[in-house]
Amino acid sequence: MTLAADIALAHRLADAAGEAIRPHFRSGTAVIDKDDASPVTVADRAAEAAMRRILSHDRPQDGIVGEEYGVEREGASRQWVLDPIDGTRAFIAGRPLFGTLIALLEDGAPVLGIIDQPIARDRWIGGDGETRLNGAVVRARGCATLGEAYLATTSPDIFFGEGGEAAFRRVWGRARDTIYGGDCLNYALLATGCLDLVMEEGLKLYDWAALVPVVAGAGGVMTDWRGEVLRLGAEGRALAAGDARVHAAAVGAIGL
Amino acid sequence: MTLAADIALAHRLADAAGEAIRPHFRSGTAVIDKDDASPVTVADRAAEAAMRRILSHDRPQDGIVGEEYGVEREGASRQWVLDPIDGTRAFIAGRPLFGTLIALLEDGAPVLGIIDQPIARDRWIGGDGETRLNGAVVRARGCATLGEAYLATTSPDIFFGEGGEAAFRRVWGRARDTIYGGDCLNYALLATGCLDLVMEEGLKLYDWAALVPVVAGAGGVMTDWRGEVLRLGAEGRALAAGDARVHAAAVGAIGL
Repeated sequence: MTLAADIALAHRLADAAGEAIRPHFRSGTAVIDKDDASPVTVADRAAEAAMRRILSHDRPQDGIVGEEYGVEREGASRQWVLDPIDGTRAFIAGRPLFGTLIALLEDGAPVLGIIDQPIARDRWIGGDGETRLNGAVVRARGCATLGEAYLATTSPDIFFGEGGEAAFRRVWGRARDTIYGGDCLNYALLATGCLDLVMEEGLKLYDWAALVPVVAGAGGVMTDWRGEVLRLGAEGRALAAGDARVHAAAVGAIGL
Repeated sequence: MTLAADIALAHRLADAAGEAIRPHFRSGTAVIDKDDASPVTVADRAAEAAMRRILSHDRPQDGIVGEEYGVEREGASRQWVLDPIDGTRAFIAGRPLFGTLIALLEDGAPVLGIIDQPIARDRWIGGDGETRLNGAVVRARGCATLGEAYLATTSPDIFFGEGGEAAFRRVWGRARDTIYGGDCLNYALLATGCLDLVMEEGLKLYDWAALVPVVAGAGGVMTDWRGEVLRLGAEGRALAAGDARVHAAAVGAIGL
C-alpha cells in the first residue's frame, strides 16, 4: 500500500465522517453519558460507523482502534486510529472547534494524520514530510524562548496526579500568554504558525495519534512531557511546540 | 429613528467589519501590544475605522464608544458601542471563534446587539423581543438546576480581586460541566440553546453591551454577579443564563 493511496483513503474517511456529523451540529441532539461521564452525541457514533464501513471494505487486513467502538485486529502492523469527534464539549456547545481525528499507525508509530473540522471545512493532513491545510502547505513558526510563546490548552481541569497541575503552572507562568479551549485544533493551529506551544494531559491514543504527523510535518515537535516520542502505549501527557527551542525549554520547565 | 432602520444599519456595520477582518485571519498579521498588553491586530483597527465611517455618515448625532478609538459625543442619548474583535487571543490563534460586537444604547441601556463571526459567517442579532441567528429565530433552552448546567467561561485566568476566583470556583464546582475559551460566542451559543450558563469577570462596556440584547431576546437573563441589570457604568462581572432558575441559583452560589 503506498502512502498516496492511504492519504486518498484518509480523505474519504474524513469526508464520510463530516457527512455524518454536520446534520447534528447545533441540532439539539440528545446528550448521551458514557461510562467516563464525558458528553458524546449520536454524531460521534454515526461518524465512526461510517469510517469503519469504508475501512472494512477497503482495508480488511488493517487494524482499527476507535474511540467509540473499540479495537479490531489488535496487533496488526497497520492500524487506523479514529476519533470521530475530538472535543465533544465543543461540539455540544455549538462551537465549530472540534475535530475528526484519523491516524495511520505502522508498527505503532503514526505515519499519517488528519485533523478535520467539518463545519468550517478546514482539513489538515500531515505525513510524507509535510502538512497541508486544505491543500496548501503550512509550517509552524519560529519562537526562540518560552517567554515569547503563545501557549494553548483545552482546559486547566485536565491536569491531575503526580504533579500534573504544578507542571502546567510552571509552563503557564513562563509563557507569554495562554488561550484555553480548542482541543485538537490547537495542534493544527500550531502547525499553521498561529500558536507556539500546546500542553495537555489525559490524552488517549485516539486523541494524540493523528496530531503527531500534523505537527511533525509542519516542522514542529510533539512528544510526551519528558520529551520522549509518543508511540502506541505512550502515557497521555502531550507537549507540542512549533520550534524545538521552545519545546526544550518547556520540557525543562516541566522538569520530570 | 425606527428600530428596523437601526437593525439594517447594524447589519451594514457588521458587513463592513467582516470585510475588514477576513483578509487578516491566519495571515500572520503582526501582533501589536496595547497599553494593557493584550494582543490586537491591524484587523481590529481597520474594522472599527470602517464602522465609524458608516456611523459618521449615517448617524452623525449618535455617540460612539469603540474599543480601539475611544468615545465620540459622550453623553448622547443614543450611543453605538463597538468591539471590532472580541476575542483577540482567539483571532491570533487562528480560531474562528472571535466576534465583532455592535450594540446600540438608548439612555444607557442596550436595546440592540449583534454578535458576528465573520469567518464562520454566523451572525446573531438581538432586539425587538427576539434573537436571530442568520435570520432564524433562536431560543435559549430550559435548565432547572445548577447541577444540570453546562457552564462556559473564556479563561480561568480572568477571575481576580474581591473573591472573584473563589466565586467562580463555587459555581464551577456545582455546574455539570465547564468549557473554556469562546469569548462572546459563549453568550451567542447560550442564546441558541447550546449552553446554560456563562460567567466572566473584567468585561468592559464594549465587551458586554451587545451580549445583553442577544441573551435577553432569546429568553435568557444577563446581569452582573449580584443579579443587577447591566447598564452604562456597570462593573465588568457578567452572568448569563438561558433559564432564570439557573441564573438565580448561580447568583446564590456566587453569594455577593
